Amino acid sequence: MSLPDEFHAIAKRVNNWGRWGADDELGTLNLITDDVVREAAACVRSGLRVPLALPLREDGVQTGMIPGRVNPLHAMVQINQEIFGPGTVACSDDAVTMGLQAGTHWDALSHVSHSGRLYNGRPAETITAHGGAAFAGIDKVPHIVSRGVLLDVARARGVDRLDGGHAVTPEDLDAAEELAGVRVRPGDVVLVRTGQVQVYLAGDKHAYGYPSPGLSVRTPEWFHARDVAAVANDTLTFEIFPPELDDLWLPVHALDLVEMGMLQGQNWNLEKLSTACGQLGRYAFLLSAMPEPFTGATGTPVAPVAVL
Amino acid sequence: MSLPDEFHAIAKRVNNWGRWGADDELGTLNLITDDVVREAAACVRSGLRVPLALPLREDGVQTGMIPGRVNPLHAMVQINQEIFGPGTVACSDDAVTMGLQAGTHWDALSHVSHSGRLYNGRPAETITAHGGAAFAGIDKVPHIVSRGVLLDVARARGVDRLDGGHAVTPEDLDAAEELAGVRVRPGDVVLVRTGQVQVYLAGDKHAYGYPSPGLSVRTPEWFHARDVAAVANDTLTFEIFPPELDDLWLPVHALDLVEMGMLQGQNWNLEKLSTACGQLGRYAFLLSAMPEPFTGATGTPVAPVAVL
Amino acid sequence: MSLPDEFHAIAKRVNNWGRWGADDELGTLNLITDDVVREAAACVRSGLRVPLALPLREDGVQTGMIPGRVNPLHAMVQINQEIFGPGTVACSDDAVTMGLQAGTHWDALSHVSHSGRLYNGRPAETITAHGGAAFAGIDKVPHIVSRGVLLDVARARGVDRLDGGHAVTPEDLDAAEELAGVRVRPGDVVLVRTGQVQVYLAGDKHAYGYPSPGLSVRTPEWFHARDVAAVANDTLTFEIFPPELDDLWLPVHALDLVEMGMLQGQNWNLEKLSTACGQLGRYAFLLSAMPEPFTGATGTPVAPVAVL
Amino acid sequence: MSLPDEFHAIAKRVNNWGRWGADDELGTLNLITDDVVREAAACVRSGLRVPLALPLREDGVQTGMIPGRVNPLHAMVQINQEIFGPGTVACSDDAVTMGLQAGTHWDALSHVSHSGRLYNGRPAETITAHGGAAFAGIDKVPHIVSRGVLLDVARARGVDRLDGGHAVTPEDLDAAEELAGVRVRPGDVVLVRTGQVQVYLAGDKHAYGYPSPGLSVRTPEWFHARDVAAVANDTLTFEIFPPELDDLWLPVHALDLVEMGMLQGQNWNLEKLSTACGQLGRYAFLLSAMPEPFTGATGTPVAPVAVL
Repeated sequence: MSLPDEFHAIAKRVNNWGRWGADDELGTLNLITDDVVREAAACVRSGLRVPLALPLREDGVQTGMIPGRVNPLHAMVQINQEIFGPGTVACSDDAVTMGLQAGTHWDALSHVSHSGRLYNGRPAETITAHGGAAFAGIDKVPHIVSRGVLLDVARARGVDRLDGGHAVTPEDLDAAEELAGVRVRPGDVVLVRTGQVQVYLAGDKHAYGYPSPGLSVRTPEWFHARDVAAVANDTLTFEIFPPELDDLWLPVHALDLVEMGMLQGQNWNLEKLSTACGQLGRYAFLLSAMPEPFTGATGTPVAPVAVL
Repeated sequence: MSLPDEFHAIAKRVNNWGRWGADDELGTLNLITDDVVREAAACVRSGLRVPLALPLREDGVQTGMIPGRVNPLHAMVQINQEIFGPGTVACSDDAVTMGLQAGTHWDALSHVSHSGRLYNGRPAETITAHGGAAFAGIDKVPHIVSRGVLLDVARARGVDRLDGGHAVTPEDLDAAEELAGVRVRPGDVVLVRTGQVQVYLAGDKHAYGYPSPGLSVRTPEWFHARDVAAVANDTLTFEIFPPELDDLWLPVHALDLVEMGMLQGQNWNLEKLSTACGQLGRYAFLLSAMPEPFTGATGTPVAPVAVL
Repeated sequence: MSLPDEFHAIAKRVNNWGRWGADDELGTLNLITDDVVREAAACVRSGLRVPLALPLREDGVQTGMIPGRVNPLHAMVQINQEIFGPGTVACSDDAVTMGLQAGTHWDALSHVSHSGRLYNGRPAETITAHGGAAFAGIDKVPHIVSRGVLLDVARARGVDRLDGGHAVTPEDLDAAEELAGVRVRPGDVVLVRTGQVQVYLAGDKHAYGYPSPGLSVRTPEWFHARDVAAVANDTLTFEIFPPELDDLWLPVHALDLVEMGMLQGQNWNLEKLSTACGQLGRYAFLLSAMPEPFTGATGTPVAPVAVL
Repeated sequence: MSLPDEFHAIAKRVNNWGRWGADDELGTLNLITDDVVREAAACVRSGLRVPLALPLREDGVQTGMIPGRVNPLHAMVQINQEIFGPGTVACSDDAVTMGLQAGTHWDALSHVSHSGRLYNGRPAETITAHGGAAFAGIDKVPHIVSRGVLLDVARARGVDRLDGGHAVTPEDLDAAEELAGVRVRPGDVVLVRTGQVQVYLAGDKHAYGYPSPGLSVRTPEWFHARDVAAVANDTLTFEIFPPELDDLWLPVHALDLVEMGMLQGQNWNLEKLSTACGQLGRYAFLLSAMPEPFTGATGTPVAPVAVL
C-alpha cells in the first residue's frame, strides 16, 4: 500500500520543510513572535481563566483500543509519613504511570511519520527506544503561549455537537470565524470545537472515540494559508474517524505534523470555553498551553488555560 | 516527639483555617482575583516567554534518597508503527512512570500534614491508597495564572548563589523586593531565587539536595503579611536543609501548606528568568503555572512560564 | 454493617492464630515439611512439565473493574542498542508496570483483613503506603514447592466447565478427590479446576470475571480439616461471585487468608494440567510455584509449573 | 568498529543455528528432556529448598548506570479497602514498575543481537516497540525445570569470593566440577558461583557492578562441549567486566545468546546454596526457574529454587 496521489498533491501545497532552516524542529511554532504574544496579552480584559484539560485519572478517555496508550494509574507511595520520626511533620507522595498521549495532550512533530520521513525530511529512524525522539521531540518546544482563537463549529452550525460522521471543512472554519468576529492571524493557536467531548463527559468512552467528527483532509490548506501556529480540538482522533477517503488513515496527522510542521492537540475540553466566549462575545484570548519537558518524548500531557 | 512551642506560636499567627469557609480547598489561591490577572496581563510588554521547568528525564534531580519519588522513566510503546497496514501513516507513542513530586512541581495543600491535620483542619486520614487525597488534592486547583514576582535573593546579596547553609530571611526578601523595584501584593505568586539549581545543572545531584539554602522558618509570616498566593523556588527542599532548629524538620512546609494553605513549588529553574529580569529591569510578569489535573494527587509536575 | 454470625462461627472453627507462634507470618505453609517435598519429588515419573500461568500482557484478564489492578504494560527501553559504540554487541531491555494481583498470582496473607485484623491477629494498619505490608508480605515466603493435587471438579461433575452460579462445595471436593484416586494430605497444595478460565481464553474477559463459579464458604473447613498448605484455582475471584450469602462479600478470602492463614492463588490456567492428569491417570505431582520476592507486597505474579 | 576475528572464530565453533530447525526459538533449552527432569527429581533426597532470588525492591542492584533498567518501584493502590462498604472484608493491592532485567533474571535469547542478527539468524529488527520481541521472546519459553549443578568456583579456588578482575576460565569450571564430584551433562542448568553478590549484600551497589569477576570469553566453548541448557551466576554483568579483550564488550553475551542459543541468568544469589551444597556434599539438585510469561519480553524476573 502507498499513500494516494491526492494526499501527495495536498502535501506539496502545505509543505514547510526548510522554511525555517534545515535543522528547524519547531515548525509553525516559529510564527509565534513577541508581537503575537503582546497581542495575546491585550486580549485579557476580564481576567477570567478557563482551564481546558480533562481530569487525569484511571477512568480517562482511553479504552484499550490503542496499545500502550494507558490512562493514568495513580498510586500513593507515601501517606502522611512522618519521615523524621513519630510526631514530626508528615508527607504524602504520589507516583503515576501513563501514556503521554492518553489524555489532553499535544502531539510532538515527531509523533507521526510517513514514507520513512518526519518533519523537515528527517529519517523516521531517528526515533529509538533508547532516548526516544532525537529530532523534534516535545523537549525541543520551550513554550507555547500565544493568542488563542476558538472556532466554535458546533455553535456556528447551530448544534450542541456535530454528528459522528461530520468532517469539519474549510467552510465550517470560515463560518465559525465569522461567528467569532475575529480574523485568524499568523501565530494564532486555533481551538476547533465539535462538542464531541460531551460524549465522554456523559460517560460513554467508546462512543467518544468512534465514530467521531473531526477535521477534514481539506483543512490543512486552510491552516497553512492562515499560518496558524498550532491547532487543538475536543476529540480523541483530531481528524474525522473513520476517515473520509477509503484506506487513507490519519491523513490530517501526516499533513499537519510531517508536512506543515504544525502541532496538534487532542482531547481538549472546550465546553466551558464555549460558554464563556458566547457570554462575553469574545473568541480570542491569551492561551498558555505549556508542554511538560519530557526528554525525547513524542507527545505530552498539557493543562491549557485560556485567559479572557 | 512533638512540635515545639515556637512552631505553634508561628502557626497561630499565619493560620488561615476557616478564612474562606470550612470547606475551602484552595487556600491562598483564593487571593488571585480577576483584577490580579488583569494586572498580570498588563505586565506583558516585550512578549518574551521564559520557561521555568527542568527537563523531565531519568537523570533528573532525584537521587533515591526519598523513597518512591522516582525520576521519570520514559519508554516508547510505539515507534513509527504503521497501525493501519504497511505503507500507511506511522505513529510513535510514549509511556512514562514518575513521582509527581520528582521534578519541577507544585505541592498540593494535602502534601503535608501535622498533628493529624491537613489544611483547614481536615483529618489527615482523608488521604488513602484508594483515590489519594479526597480533600485538597491538586485536582481541586483549576488554574494558576497570576502576577509573578521574582525575588532574586542571590543577586540582592551580590552572589551567584547562596551558600548551602543560608536561610533566606524576611530581611532577604525585603532586600530582593527593593532590588526588584516592585511591591509584592495580595494574589502574587512569588519566585524566590537562591541560585542553588546551578549545582544540579552542573551535574552534582547530591550536592544540589543537601546541604541546601532555602526559606527560613521566619518567612511564612512575611508571605502571610503580604497575602501571597503561592511561593516557588529553585531548590529540592524549598526550605533550608538541614533545618535551622534542631529536630524541627520541614517546619516551613507545615506552616505554608497546613496552616496558611499556601501552595509551594520546588525545583524551579529561575536562572534564565533572573537574567531576563536583570536585563529588562523588570521583576514582575504574567505567570502561568498550570497544575496537571491528576485526580486525588498531592502534587503535580508543572511547566511554568513567565511572560514579560 | 458487620460480618454475620454465620461467618464468625466458621471463622472460629478454622482459626490458626498462634498455632505456629505469635510472630508467624507463614500460616499453613508451615505444613510443607521436607518429607512432603520428598514425596512430591517421588511423584515425578514421566518428567512432563505443565506451566500454569496465563500470558502477562496488556490484554490480560483485568477489565478495569478493580481500581489500580492494571494489566501489564510492557515497553521496550532499549532495542538492539549498541551501548559501546557502532558495530558492537547490541542489547534490548524491557520495563513493565502491572498490578501484582493482575494475572496468575498468589495473594499474600496480608492481602485481606477484616474487623481491623490480619492473620495472626496483627493490626491491619501495619500495611502502609511507605513500605507496604510490614507483616505477612509476600517477601516473607521464601519458597513454595510441594506436592500438588488437582481436584478437577468440572471433570468429576462430567462437564467442561461449571456454570457461573456453581459454588464448589466440600462434596464436590470429595468427588474430585475420588476421581483423582489420591488422598489430600497435610502440606499439599490443592488446585481446584472449574474450567472457568476457558471463558477468558475464548476472549470474553467480562464474562470470565462475572458471574463466576468458585469456592463455597463451606470449603475452608474442608481445607482446614485436611491441613492443606495452599489452594489455587482458575477463576478471577477464587470464590463464587456474586457470593452465596446476601451482603457477605469475599468471606472465603477472609476465612482462608485471615483466619486460617492459608495462601490463595487465582487466575491459574489448569486446562492443560487437566488433560495431562486425565491421560496419565495421575493427579498428584511436584508443584513449584515460587513467589517473586517483592518487599512489602500483598501479592505476587507467579509462574507455577507442575512436574509429573 | 566491527567484532574481531577471534570473536568470529569462537562463534563458528559454538554456533547452533539450525540445529533444532530454522524456526526454533528455544535453543539449548531443547536439551532438557523428560529423562533429564526425571534425573533432576532423583536428586531430591533431603527435601531442602533453597531460594536463589534477591529481594525485589527500590534499593535493588541497579545504580542508574544502565538507562531504563530501573529497580522495582512498589506502590500500594489499595490499603485495607472495604470495597463493598463499611464493615466488610477489606483488601490491599499493589502495583509495580520495574526493568525486567533489573534484579534476579533470565535474559531471553532475543536480549542480545550482533551484526544485525538474533539467535538462529533472525533479523534483529523483529524486535519493535510495538509488541517487543516477535522472535525468541521469553514468552516462547514455557518452562525451565531441570537438573541444576552448582560450580562453586570461589570455593574451588579456596576464596570467599573472586577478585573483580578474575575471569572464570574453563579450567576453573573443571576444578569446580571436580570439587562438586558430579559430571555436567546435556540439559543441565549450570550455576557458577563467584561470590560477587556478597558485595551487594554488604551494601555497595557500585562495587558490585564494577569491576566484576565473571565468565571468560573462553567459557562458551566449555558449555557448548557439555551441551548445557542454561547458565546463571551471581554477578550483574555475567561475564567479566570490564572485558578481557580491549574494545570487545559483552562477547560472552553474544556467544551464548546469539550463537549458541543458550539462556543466561544474572544477579542470582548463590550464597545459601553454596553453604547447603557444602554441608550436604552434593552439588546437583532439582532446579525450578520459571520465567514469568511476559509477551514479547527480552527478559524476565525469576525466583529460582533449588531442591536438594
